[in-house]
Amino acid sequence: MKLATYTVEGRTRTGIVVGDTVIDTGIAGTMIDLIRDWDTHRPALEARAAAGGGLPLSAVKLEAPVPRPGKIWAIGLNYADHIAESNMETPQRQVWFTKAQTSVNGPHDAIEIARGTMTADYEVELVAIVGKGGKHISAADAPAAIFGYCVGNDVTERLWQHAGPQWSLGKSFDTHAPMGPWIVTADEVGDPHALGLRCFVNGEKRQDSSTSHLVFNIWQQVEHLSVGMTLEPGDCLFTGTPGGVGAAMDPRQFLKPGDIVRCEIDGLGHIEAAMVAAA
Amino acid sequence: MKLATYTVEGRTRTGIVVGDTVIDTGIAGTMIDLIRDWDTHRPALEARAAAGGGLPLSAVKLEAPVPRPGKIWAIGLNYADHIAESNMETPQRQVWFTKAQTSVNGPHDAIEIARGTMTADYEVELVAIVGKGGKHISAADAPAAIFGYCVGNDVTERLWQHAGPQWSLGKSFDTHAPMGPWIVTADEVGDPHALGLRCFVNGEKRQDSSTSHLVFNIWQQVEHLSVGMTLEPGDCLFTGTPGGVGAAMDPRQFLKPGDIVRCEIDGLGHIEAAMVAAA
Repeated sequence: MKLATYTVEGRTRTGIVVGDTVIDTGIAGTMIDLIRDWDTHRPALEARAAAGGGLPLSAVKLEAPVPRPGKIWAIGLNYADHIAESNMETPQRQVWFTKAQTSVNGPHDAIEIARGTMTADYEVELVAIVGKGGKHISAADAPAAIFGYCVGNDVTERLWQHAGPQWSLGKSFDTHAPMGPWIVTADEVGDPHALGLRCFVNGEKRQDSSTSHLVFNIWQQVEHLSVGMTLEPGDCLFTGTPGGVGAAMDPRQFLKPGDIVRCEIDGLGHIEAAMVAAA
Repeated sequence: MKLATYTVEGRTRTGIVVGDTVIDTGIAGTMIDLIRDWDTHRPALEARAAAGGGLPLSAVKLEAPVPRPGKIWAIGLNYADHIAESNMETPQRQVWFTKAQTSVNGPHDAIEIARGTMTADYEVELVAIVGKGGKHISAADAPAAIFGYCVGNDVTERLWQHAGPQWSLGKSFDTHAPMGPWIVTADEVGDPHALGLRCFVNGEKRQDSSTSHLVFNIWQQVEHLSVGMTLEPGDCLFTGTPGGVGAAMDPRQFLKPGDIVRCEIDGLGHIEAAMVAAA
């Protein structure tokens, strides 16, 4: 099933995406509420999806599937080619940073280049959305803890990322966590470690890889994060970006107002945004 | 005014602390809702506080004043003596990391030492609670963006903090962000840069300093954070810890089950917790 958060006539709600339509779930609350009570809601949603109807996607505004995740964690240095282009060594241990919940952005919303900065960069990533979550989750049990997947762009302000030792603030600027266009539930995705993912800037392909190349796979990621920290419904895990970021090009290429950035992943759809200068 | 979140008879609500009593605010919603609409609520709360009544503090359970902050940011290396004991250099630029919202803990709740870890450490800190917040806040305008202050303990799993380059995960274990006992509003605190703060372990004084020794003061912190990121009501800023942490003692002293950790700040009260082994 494909689940979206969307706005129409000023009201934001959750919906089921069927073809090029979206059908209101009829459930009060946010995507997090829906995920938390998924087992209860699922039969009714399957019936609604089968009944059809709904609105054309073109008639609604898609929001990030989880507009306010409780936590967003992102793993760094998790594809060999990105590690090499970053002049780093393959970490022996997973390296995690965070993105602020205020950095979440809709799948087609403009991405703002903050005042006084000029080193915004893209990073296409598979985003895993936590389902029941929990703590002390083994890699073997991790698949049952994940609800589904979507496309993410770990937009990064490179100067802020690297001006000091800690990356999170340079990863947390407003609009710097676009996600979408919807969540595809885990059962429909199948193997999340066999998905092609690509990023284009103004139509030029910049990143082109497969989640089969993850250094630490998603199950290892869930195990590592949950040793001391409870993962909750709707938490978002950015699972790493492959090589090809603008900061590693020669000469370096950063995003500028007017650029169009498109991120796509096999089976999950695409997100696409215009870069704009912040007001 | 002093504002608490407390639980009695299974219901969690916000209250005004007057002497050793707590008076229900009568306002539906969380502390974040109260902070967001503070100007509207304040006159009624002042009237309630003046009318007296309420429950003895001993009859309620105090929770963290903001049980679910949208964001928790914490600055590292922000007291000269802590920088020296950490064998680091004074940063030219502010160094920020995050604590997960799931790490929040009540002011007197037990702090869990996670399975398989043994390097839990304390860090007493003044916590600034964001009021109206905003973006592009200058240091001059920062005082108006802060709602109030409380005592915090930036409990840290040192091995996890330093096993890789990024600190946030080792700062985000469950129960590792105790805060409280309540928020003292900014007008009642006066100058937040002239407060003595201390940490005791089993009655032994380990940290003893003053917020007058902050390298980057709170107004500079607000300016830096809000360049690209919107600060929102209830966001929590841990403003740095002074020297005296267990990791810097010779020999190193980490917290063990049964230890009692007390953090106190002039005018704000104290928080105190027993260390326990996680189930």
